[in-house]
Amino acid sequence: MKIIRDVHEMQRTALALREKAIPVGVAPTMGYFHDGHLSLMRRAKHENDICVVTLFVNPTQFGKNEDLSKYPRNEARDSAMAESVGADILFMPPPEAMYPAGYQTFVDVEEVSLPMCGESRPGHFRGVATVVTKLFMLTQPRRAYFGLKDYQQCQVIRRMTGDLNIPVDLVFCPIVREPDGLAMSSRNVYLTKEERRAATVLSRALENARRFVEQGQRHAEKIRDFVKMQILAEPLAVIDYVEAVDAQSLQPIGQIAHPMLVAVAVRFGKTRLIDNIVIEI
Amino acid sequence: MKIIRDVHEMQRTALALREKAIPVGVAPTMGYFHDGHLSLMRRAKHENDICVVTLFVNPTQFGKNEDLSKYPRNEARDSAMAESVGADILFMPPPEAMYPAGYQTFVDVEEVSLPMCGESRPGHFRGVATVVTKLFMLTQPRRAYFGLKDYQQCQVIRRMTGDLNIPVDLVFCPIVREPDGLAMSSRNVYLTKEERRAATVLSRALENARRFVEQGQRHAEKIRDFVKMQILAEPLAVIDYVEAVDAQSLQPIGQIAHPMLVAVAVRFGKTRLIDNIVIEI
Repeated sequence: MKIIRDVHEMQRTALALREKAIPVGVAPTMGYFHDGHLSLMRRAKHENDICVVTLFVNPTQFGKNEDLSKYPRNEARDSAMAESVGADILFMPPPEAMYPAGYQTFVDVEEVSLPMCGESRPGHFRGVATVVTKLFMLTQPRRAYFGLKDYQQCQVIRRMTGDLNIPVDLVFCPIVREPDGLAMSSRNVYLTKEERRAATVLSRALENARRFVEQGQRHAEKIRDFVKMQILAEPLAVIDYVEAVDAQSLQPIGQIAHPMLVAVAVRFGKTRLIDNIVIEI
Repeated sequence: MKIIRDVHEMQRTALALREKAIPVGVAPTMGYFHDGHLSLMRRAKHENDICVVTLFVNPTQFGKNEDLSKYPRNEARDSAMAESVGADILFMPPPEAMYPAGYQTFVDVEEVSLPMCGESRPGHFRGVATVVTKLFMLTQPRRAYFGLKDYQQCQVIRRMTGDLNIPVDLVFCPIVREPDGLAMSSRNVYLTKEERRAATVLSRALENARRFVEQGQRHAEKIRDFVKMQILAEPLAVIDYVEAVDAQSLQPIGQIAHPMLVAVAVRFGKTRLIDNIVIEI
């Protein structure tokens, strides 16, 4: 596995591959890998000749009071993990190469960025859309792999890629969970033992929502309230949002007609976790 | 010359060329060609194996009260002209293919979009940056050719392309002028005979500014006022702006140190014309 830090070297390498029609699959990440990341890398490797993993803790997607400076990092461990699943290139650009002095261009995706995490984290998806555009330009992938835990992020990237005609096939991969159901997240390391135990309420509540629908419930608001009540019953949980919306547009719905997304963002102590489930009917 | 209207066909064609390492030069235009456009096409053809001309009157760069619906069009004449200078592909997508229902992604370039035309035409450069990004993705050029009459546009595109790491070499081409000095523009056809005569004041005033600097003048404000007074002396001219700024950042300057841009936007009747000169010292 080759480690590339220089943006120009990365782009030269990627363009040379494209000009030889060698398909590249990219897994864009912020590092501190867990099995969720590895599932993206394995699939990128399996479906393409070359697997590029990008590791960049993107400052423009963090708010002022968020955890940019504390975000967990471990380059040596991440390198070994990426190599172990067959990554060919690990691209780790320094922030000042991605956003040099005078940087001033941003990609804005409008409607789909507004609700949920867009409301809790103003500017977050602007940073995401911008850095993903840049990473696509630098790595020239035929396919790109993202995890569905960041469900709204996937929808923002889907709109952005389609709207801007970026020639990349997007592959959204299932959430990978711990044995007790907690969605894997680099931020899980922030949790105290008590918070870690309490956080299992999220996946339990979402799984119960699925059963609620299977039993015939069709009112989005009732499903949302059902999830909310379960989370409220956990004393360590502080709800940021609980939503039941159209899974594509992320707009509010009354009765379920299309696939429905139930998405939650909940704080446990200083740690904000997200999780979601798509319920087909 | 092949005419392509379908965005997918254009992108498939362009990606096939890229995967064979065949260099493409693109000249993005809004049509109604004059010698300025042709100079871009000739150079694109000369410096690349394939010359793609895009013709798209981009709705997102027009304000509500601007001339989108009246913008001059003549596909048959434009096709013949593009073919006559060796264009290989003329790409003319319909607006609804470029901005389908639900479209919601925009590229924003901040500082450099703010002054001058950015002030007179809010949202204009957002539309420009967005459509140029899309056209770059659809035509996959190695080089792209733009005319320096739209000087601020060139700077916006330069920032955008660099900031987003789009792998395109930008080539900015000199303004092409009528024998009496008027900068060529598709909008010149709007002018009445009287306005057409009056409009020559712009290039005369800019040429005089250059002489003023050659004679030793170094105060940007004095140079700007000198240009302004000459235009004010023309009764049919209504000034939108006259600026003398740093040619790269477009920020105000006191004494000239680096190359200076003198740029004007002036209305003659209902027609808004722009012109500029870069003065090196």
